Amino acid sequence: MDNKRIFIAVIGASKATPEETRLAEEVGKELALRQVTLVCGGMGGVMEAACRGASLNGGLTIGILPGNSREEANPYVQIPIISSIGFARNVMVVKSAQAVIAVGGAYGTLSEIAYALQSGLPVITLNSWSMSQNGKADGTVIKAGNALEAVTMALDLIN
Amino acid sequence: MDNKRIFIAVIGASKATPEETRLAEEVGKELALRQVTLVCGGMGGVMEAACRGASLNGGLTIGILPGNSREEANPYVQIPIISSIGFARNVMVVKSAQAVIAVGGAYGTLSEIAYALQSGLPVITLNSWSMSQNGKADGTVIKAGNALEAVTMALDLIN
Amino acid sequence: MDNKRIFIAVIGASKATPEETRLAEEVGKELALRQVTLVCGGMGGVMEAACRGASLNGGLTIGILPGNSREEANPYVQIPIISSIGFARNVMVVKSAQAVIAVGGAYGTLSEIAYALQSGLPVITLNSWSMSQNGKADGTVIKAGNALEAVTMALDLIN
Amino acid sequence: MDNKRIFIAVIGASKATPEETRLAEEVGKELALRQVTLVCGGMGGVMEAACRGASLNGGLTIGILPGNSREEANPYVQIPIISSIGFARNVMVVKSAQAVIAVGGAYGTLSEIAYALQSGLPVITLNSWSMSQNGKADGTVIKAGNALEAVTMALDLIN
Repeated sequence: MDNKRIFIAVIGASKATPEETRLAEEVGKELALRQVTLVCGGMGGVMEAACRGASLNGGLTIGILPGNSREEANPYVQIPIISSIGFARNVMVVKSAQAVIAVGGAYGTLSEIAYALQSGLPVITLNSWSMSQNGKADGTVIKAGNALEAVTMALDLIN
Repeated sequence: MDNKRIFIAVIGASKATPEETRLAEEVGKELALRQVTLVCGGMGGVMEAACRGASLNGGLTIGILPGNSREEANPYVQIPIISSIGFARNVMVVKSAQAVIAVGGAYGTLSEIAYALQSGLPVITLNSWSMSQNGKADGTVIKAGNALEAVTMALDLIN
Repeated sequence: MDNKRIFIAVIGASKATPEETRLAEEVGKELALRQVTLVCGGMGGVMEAACRGASLNGGLTIGILPGNSREEANPYVQIPIISSIGFARNVMVVKSAQAVIAVGGAYGTLSEIAYALQSGLPVITLNSWSMSQNGKADGTVIKAGNALEAVTMALDLIN
Repeated sequence: MDNKRIFIAVIGASKATPEETRLAEEVGKELALRQVTLVCGGMGGVMEAACRGASLNGGLTIGILPGNSREEANPYVQIPIISSIGFARNVMVVKSAQAVIAVGGAYGTLSEIAYALQSGLPVITLNSWSMSQNGKADGTVIKAGNALEAVTMALDLIN
């Protein structure tokens, strides 16, 4: 395996709407078709859908789990990492990647977007968070219209 | 010392504008006058101003530092905690408190707001972040107009 | 409060023998009598006994808890820090101190001794671990005969 | 890739003697020949030698790095995880594995042995640490005579 391989993080909530599930699975598939390794928090919902899309298309999936056991990983995580540090592991999910794609998402996802922006990583969003500071929109996060666009944008911004 | 004591986290960037400095110092002072312990990330900017306001008014200040040394603490931190885990320590700053007051803030502050909301803690903001999800405003964060209001609101929401 | 204050970590298991309880309580008392702040993991057993000894003698006690709630702290912890990162918090307990006193101890205590030695901190032991590498004793840990000696040695090695 | 795959952690110092380098490389090779994934701290010395032995024999290598950059990984790490939490990451290196093989080692390695024992994982040592508690040897760590024996023992104790 090539240690120069690109890792992209897919972040989102552990409970997902049908639309988020569809988007995340497609993101996973598009990453796999481009030999990009998917890194995520390893749990259900958006994370599971993205891992399924990647795994079923020959991609590699890493799940950095919050707890103490592989058992909590979704069945499409190929490389389970047992962090044991709870949600403090969010920072690792994004820092291990070269770009981040957010699909929907709860507050944990927002913490990951914040960490990614702090680290200077490109963040592409699909139906996810946007922020404003003191009433002024923060334009750093980039909205994509669909999964293919999100993956293309993320790769463009890395290269 | 009473182990039932209230802790409130004051979060914000390590570089602060004069207005943020003024607000943070006043927040620190108002917390001290109410015997509330201030917890923060221990560094400069908003954190230092808040610790100064608290310390000069007889309050207790805790700084949970990202690095490996007490030397990095601002001079008004009375209880320095050496986390050594970098920005993953953000989750501890908010979880150690019963409410959070954000003054301005960069992306690290945004990660702390996200963790606080995930943990169900009240978050009061002064010239800080607000968020929307998929175009719809998230109304969980509460804006205050000045330092006294922020402290009063935070205490009301705890009790 | 003086931010130059000395912090000493008292480490040991969350279940303690009567002898370990007695030793830990005495260590806590001797630290308090010398205005040294006690830092520990905040749980029961040796940690609780040390905090009790310190608290009942006017000392200040900090507990860096592994979990997500103040509820898990022993009743003599005055400053509870919610780390939320499980046993990865062990490194913080020792790094926040200028010296470490181990009373008995299970494997978590051994990890703390290891982190303290890695950080170059003095480690004084009472009925605790000693190590050898490849059959050769590691003489870095210092055995004390009783609580008073442990506290005196720790302070001597800081100053 | 099979998500039931066995992970074994190889732990040891970032500076290694020639004998430790030889042992670690052989351990890496024997793991690779058995389709076991190697997990380590991702740095130099014993970690690099083990990754080299595994990589050159078709094995998969994961490095859980302490810092903020892939650049610090040794060149034989195929899956770099950016923990960003410093030596608090030691707990993850061992918890992500089903057994641990220690080759030599400094105090960081001792902390990893302690965490592994706390988690109930088998620990096999090659010229590494042994411990005694209050003068009584702790027999939990198992000494191996050579790399092949270490790998065989580790796999036996998992199955």
